Order: sequence, then structure tokens, then C-alpha cells
Amino acid sequence: MACPFCPGNEASTPPAVLTLPGENSLEWSVRVVPNKFAALVPGQDRVHKRVGNIYREMEGVGVHEVIIEAPEHDQTLALMPDERVLCVLKAYKQRYQSLSQEPWARLVLIFKNHGESAGTSLEHPHSQLIAMPVVPKDMRQRYEIATAYYDDAGRCIYCDLVKEEIELKERIVLETDCFVVFHPFASRFPFETWITPKRHEPSFGNVPDEDLKELAQVLKSALLGLFTALEDPDYNYVIHSAPVEDEQKGYYLWHIQIIPRLTKIAGFELGSGMSINTALPEETAKFIREVN
Amino acid sequence: MACPFCPGNEASTPPAVLTLPGENSLEWSVRVVPNKFAALVPGQDRVHKRVGNIYREMEGVGVHEVIIEAPEHDQTLALMPDERVLCVLKAYKQRYQSLSQEPWARLVLIFKNHGESAGTSLEHPHSQLIAMPVVPKDMRQRYEIATAYYDDAGRCIYCDLVKEEIELKERIVLETDCFVVFHPFASRFPFETWITPKRHEPSFGNVPDEDLKELAQVLKSALLGLFTALEDPDYNYVIHSAPVEDEQKGYYLWHIQIIPRLTKIAGFELGSGMSINTALPEETAKFIREVN
Repeated sequence: MACPFCPGNEASTPPAVLTLPGENSLEWSVRVVPNKFAALVPGQDRVHKRVGNIYREMEGVGVHEVIIEAPEHDQTLALMPDERVLCVLKAYKQRYQSLSQEPWARLVLIFKNHGESAGTSLEHPHSQLIAMPVVPKDMRQRYEIATAYYDDAGRCIYCDLVKEEIELKERIVLETDCFVVFHPFASRFPFETWITPKRHEPSFGNVPDEDLKELAQVLKSALLGLFTALEDPDYNYVIHSAPVEDEQKGYYLWHIQIIPRLTKIAGFELGSGMSINTALPEETAKFIREVN
Repeated sequence: MACPFCPGNEASTPPAVLTLPGENSLEWSVRVVPNKFAALVPGQDRVHKRVGNIYREMEGVGVHEVIIEAPEHDQTLALMPDERVLCVLKAYKQRYQSLSQEPWARLVLIFKNHGESAGTSLEHPHSQLIAMPVVPKDMRQRYEIATAYYDDAGRCIYCDLVKEEIELKERIVLETDCFVVFHPFASRFPFETWITPKRHEPSFGNVPDEDLKELAQVLKSALLGLFTALEDPDYNYVIHSAPVEDEQKGYYLWHIQIIPRLTKIAGFELGSGMSINTALPEETAKFIREVN
């Protein structure tokens, strides 16, 4: 079957909501299209309805989009020129900003599944965006912990954490003017990698345009390090951003979490919500620094 | 390499902590041994220590055991005679009871990884037990919700849920005198299956011996249904039980959660903690009922 994301097959996706022009002979560099098999779809009814005596349900209202990262079928972010990665980030930001304006939007999640173990169904490089009408329970919990820390310390917990990592250095992979890449303390997954801004900013939608270029370099470098060290591992990444209603507050720091899928999520993890990680972030960060 | 769990190779595991005798020519039916690659090991120091200005760490104190479910290398619970499944459950209960007496034990988690997608590293049928010195955050949260429900309604939320399922019938797979098997409402995974007792009991360690035989039949039947319908799918199961300190309280119901691994846990799930399930439990339960 022809790849629906390849140039020439544009008609096999729903019409694009955003197209970034390509250079030279390329017709486009990035295309954003509604997901044909959307988890959430636009709609009106967001009231939770009772089902029987105990349960509640609501319509799956929201938006689910696909960001086609390149016209080339076998391209991958880790090997793309910085300016092409920048195009992808520009598309992310533009769609984030647009969808976070929707009156029903509570959280905009951008994520990528690379490789079969990471849940990719299509090979052509792409990422996804889901704008949802609820704040997920996990996010709510993280947010409450961050708020409690702020109430106690008067500072953003994530900013303190980044400051601590920069001082300790041992888990740092890369530091630039505006960003830092590190393997978090007591990380859940081997080679789990975070990219955070150094300046407090809760929302990915508010990253200044002048920082996006540096972010593209940093993201590409982080992915290239993993690509080289682990031989093109399957991975997911997620852009974590504050709930839309809390974007102006002082409690959260947007960040990118990259999770190479080197081990399985098994019974212990599913049953306890805790993780067994056999690789120390101090050692994996050192390993990546040496590869770089 | 020789399988360390096969009869004759008993010396390649640490000495057994429990051996259940076999019938006929079998030397044993079930062996429980300490995990050679234990996630947690016995120790004294359970105090959380500061690391730098933000982090905490503690020693990995606990017990990690392997329950070898059968001497036969290519046996599987779904196809085992009921009385052999009963032996496995007896071993579970005996080890649960013994380890929950440890002064440091806060939660005893029994789980199984079947097949590669479910994280098995060894083919020989086995399950695992981890007795841990902390109550995992996810368990704490479930428990708090259950307690709040009890304070509001004066009843166990899980018992109400089971009662509701029995009345509605549509998600029920099997009902016996003491147990019920169903696909939960708004389940996270396709064909996710729960086995619960019909009588309130927070702890798996307190299942009456006289109920274990029926539980063995029910567990075997649930696994056989999935085996037949989905052609021996990879799966995990977890025996959820109240924290040890709360075993006598009225708020929780022990249960077995079976998760066939038919889809990948991908970026959306990792990023949001929510799940996209494309199969309706009402339909999958019906399908399994028809297969049975």
C-alpha cells in the first residue's frame, strides 16, 4: 500500500490544517493533518453522563492531528539538518497555540512514537498532537505536587531541579544558553532524557520564537546521541506542558521527555506504577557525553 | 543454555524457600526461589536519605521471589489441570502470608509476565512476587479514592462495582459462587479482565483455603478463554491486594487484573497516563462468553 504521508499521496489524508513550504525542489517540509483514525474528534457535548449507579462517561471531544515531519519516507529527526527540525518545532508551536485557544481545551499533548516497540503504525516520520478537554489525573497530581512545593519554597520545583542538575553536572548531557539536556535522577527508563528550558516557562506554546532555533539544535543533538549510542533505538518523546488554564502560573516548567524503549513495561510496572530501571542515569549520561 | 527452572537444574537457582510436592513421577509441582537478579534484597536501612538539595533515596530493601509454576518447560497456566493451578495459588498465598509478616513489608505484589511483549525473559512458566517497604504512589491514590468513597457511601467502592457488574451482566464473562470475572467498564486495555471475590476481602493473603479451589478453576477458565479467543496472547497479570497495614479495613477488594498485551503502550499513554482502548469491554466480554 502506498504511504499516505509521502508527497503525491496528499489526497489520502484529510486536508492539511498547516503546511510549511519546502526549500529547493520540495513542495513542503512539514504537513499537519487531522488524524484519520482520531482518538478524539470535535464535538459539543462535554458533560459527564451517569452510566448506571457508579460510572460516568463523556463524548471523546477534542482534536487529534498528525505532524508529518518530512516529505522523505525514510528520514528521521536524529539525522535531519537543524533547520528541518526547526520546521517541525515551528509546526508544533503553531498548532499548540492555535488549539490551546479552543474554549474546551484543557491540555495539548504533543508526542512521537518512533519504531515498532514505541507503537508506530506508519514508518514515515511523524508525530502527533492531541488537544483534550480534560486534565489527565497524572498531570493533575504532578501539578498539585509542584504547587505544594511552590507554596512551601516560593520557587518552581522544576526550576530548582534544573538548577540542581546544572550544579551537580553528573547527569547533564548538554547545556546551551537557553536549554539543558539531562538524564533525570532516579529515572524510570534506561537512557530516559529530559530537555528543559533554563528560564521559567510553564507552556511550550510560549517558547519565544528566537529560542526555537536553539531548541531544534538541542533536540536534534539529544536524538542523535541516542541514535549513535544505541543504534537507532525505538523511542517515544512527549512535550509536557502546563494545563492550558495554568499557562501563566509559576508552578510548572514545560519539558521534553525522551524515552528509548529498550526494556518492556511488564507486570511489576503495570501493577505498581513504579519502575525497575537497571541503568543508572549517572552512568548513561556519562556514556552519552562520551559518544557526543 | 540449560533452563534454570527445569527439573535437574535446581542448583542453578538460589535454594528454594518453598517446594510443593508433585504427584506421580514429578518430584515437585511448584518451586519458589529467590530471584537471582532481584530488584529488592533483604537489608536493614529503610531511612530515606537526602541526595543534594532536592532528591531522596533509599536502599532497595525487600524480597523478590520467582514462583516456578510447573516442572514442565512448555506448560502454561491456561492449559494446566485445575489442581495444578491450585498448587500455584497455594504457593502464592503461602508466600504472601509469610512475607506480609515481615516488619518492613508494606505491600506484597504478585504478578506474571507471559510472552515476550509482556516482558518475559525466561520461557519456563513462572510468576514473581515482590514484597516492598513502601506503598506505591498509584496504590496510595487508589486507596485514598476508595476510602473517600467509603466515607461518603459507607460501602466499599469495589464491592459496589462488582455488584453493579453482576446486575448489568453485559461485561461479565463468568460468575461462580464466590467469584466473578468481567471486563471492566472503560478498561485501559483491549480484553483487560478482572477476577474479583464476591465477598468483601481486602487482602489476597486472607482468601479462605476453601475458596482457593474455586479460584483456581476461575483463573484457569479466564486464561483459557483468552488463550482460545486470542491464540495464546502475551499477557501480564497482577494480584492487587491492600497495603499490609490496611488488610483488615473495609475499603479495598483484592482482585486479579489480567492484561493481554495486544497493543503497545505508546507516547500518548506514557505522556498522559491515560489510555486509548479501541475495543469496547462490552463487546470483548461478549466475544469471550461466546468462545467459552
